[in-house]
Amino acid sequence: MSGPHPSTAQIRYAVRSALADLSPGAVVLVACSGGGDSMALAEAVAHEQRHDDWSSGAVVVDHGLQPDSAEVAGMVGERVRALGLDPVAVERVVVADRGSGLEAAARDARYAALDAVADRVGATVVLLGHTLDDQAEQVLLGLVRGSGARSLSGMPSTRGRFRRPLLGVTRHQCRESLEAEGVAWWDDPMNDDPAFTRVRARRAVADLEADLGPGVAAALARSADLLREDADHLDSLADSAVQALGAGPWEVDDLAALPRAVRTRVWRRLLVAAGAPAGQVGTRHTDACERLVTSWRGQGPAHLPGDLRATRSGGRIALSR
Amino acid sequence: MSGPHPSTAQIRYAVRSALADLSPGAVVLVACSGGGDSMALAEAVAHEQRHDDWSSGAVVVDHGLQPDSAEVAGMVGERVRALGLDPVAVERVVVADRGSGLEAAARDARYAALDAVADRVGATVVLLGHTLDDQAEQVLLGLVRGSGARSLSGMPSTRGRFRRPLLGVTRHQCRESLEAEGVAWWDDPMNDDPAFTRVRARRAVADLEADLGPGVAAALARSADLLREDADHLDSLADSAVQALGAGPWEVDDLAALPRAVRTRVWRRLLVAAGAPAGQVGTRHTDACERLVTSWRGQGPAHLPGDLRATRSGGRIALSR
Repeated sequence: MSGPHPSTAQIRYAVRSALADLSPGAVVLVACSGGGDSMALAEAVAHEQRHDDWSSGAVVVDHGLQPDSAEVAGMVGERVRALGLDPVAVERVVVADRGSGLEAAARDARYAALDAVADRVGATVVLLGHTLDDQAEQVLLGLVRGSGARSLSGMPSTRGRFRRPLLGVTRHQCRESLEAEGVAWWDDPMNDDPAFTRVRARRAVADLEADLGPGVAAALARSADLLREDADHLDSLADSAVQALGAGPWEVDDLAALPRAVRTRVWRRLLVAAGAPAGQVGTRHTDACERLVTSWRGQGPAHLPGDLRATRSGGRIALSR
Repeated sequence: MSGPHPSTAQIRYAVRSALADLSPGAVVLVACSGGGDSMALAEAVAHEQRHDDWSSGAVVVDHGLQPDSAEVAGMVGERVRALGLDPVAVERVVVADRGSGLEAAARDARYAALDAVADRVGATVVLLGHTLDDQAEQVLLGLVRGSGARSLSGMPSTRGRFRRPLLGVTRHQCRESLEAEGVAWWDDPMNDDPAFTRVRARRAVADLEADLGPGVAAALARSADLLREDADHLDSLADSAVQALGAGPWEVDDLAALPRAVRTRVWRRLLVAAGAPAGQVGTRHTDACERLVTSWRGQGPAHLPGDLRATRSGGRIALSR
């Protein structure tokens, strides 16, 4: 008897590795849209649980953004149940765009629903079907924002109870696996709508592969891993530096003694701690603070988000409103 | 009387800032291909030297890669002389591809010629016409190699006697400036030949702008600046760690105590110091060393470039041939 298709084997191995630390009796939930990635994930989870002492269910979120969304969600729920996952919760959410865009609103609603179901069924782990291709797109979007290592470092494989076992697996491998296992999936028409940033990012990765040769997606994902390690360490150095600096005003000499890569991150932390909304602090603002340290010519205060200003006077820098 | 075109003003300001630290009597050389970027640079240098106490010449390198290259180089030399730069050296070089590709060979020959002329005329500074667009392309090429912050950090504004005043100026601004000043430039047909990586990278940036909106080139350049600061600091931490570790074999505990972002860089340094060719050490190899520290299951040695192997035994890791 031959074994499973190599893509199926790789996906199952990825799932097994991601769940190797589970305690007996643990409950795992798969977040499943019914698309190729999350169906391949659900298939692998269903297969692995047969050999192990944890159990698994699924959550299908109906975002209500398309006329037939309830029907699709119901169908996906049936398919996942047929794979052997139980319980399967089909959750209808209300997506309200409060100014940050439809994609962000849908994501917020989805994560809230996943958390709610996980609490309800006592799941310790929620699995997400993001692939290497999703990771590459995420890096590219960070890159064109121009905002440093953290935003280039993509999605972590673990955050709280959420885990992403498929970050090393391609979208293509997921579909190969499903075809080999005879499992159907659903191609969301919204995945082709260039109104969505994510869809444009997908095209951008494809264009890069056409311009610069194959392997771009894998290279982007590898870059993300390396930059995440960098960002983790530099963030922890910045945390320590903020601790050591204590409450302001701060001596210019103490700030100047920090390496620039750390000081930029320290500024971000000091500004947010002083009340600047985190989402509004950009390199423009940390650069303005930076100039008070490194390009001091007696200039006036730097004006910052949250009505803050940074003022240098007598060898010290203060943040105030 | 109205002032210069805004692009001309910006380019001249960039040149002035880049040369603010020159000593009286200094000699500055402009590396000039005759293309729009380096001609705009030469124009700005010629303008600025009128107000200042340094003098400037130019080097035009004839790579001999096209039948009419000597003619073109001669014409470019005349144009640069007409701007007021003196001396202008037209240098014929021999480009021999020794396996690393024509572009790399041409670059090596070009820098050797620039260094030789700088030595000959006693120039302390050689200016290069790389723009923000070149920087963006450089970042993208690093990204698709997938090899970490350093290769994503693009070109520095200063390296030894070489300086790049135009990294904040676009290719388009250079051409605007030349048109406004009535200075002719030469469009190298090789700039459209997709056989060259650089040309494909240019297309890739244009495609990204089309997919994800304008501003991509500027964002890539900004990412480069931030990542360069990160890489500088992490590299200096790695240098210190290598010093502290001393000669091998090294205690696993000492290696394990390093943050991962630093340890990856330490491995690279240890491998190169032990004789691995720097160009051959990739993440694959540092990962193999890494597994000896963090995923130790009694495995055999890691095989590494330069016939090296890393072996863990008795709580220590040794590098040997």
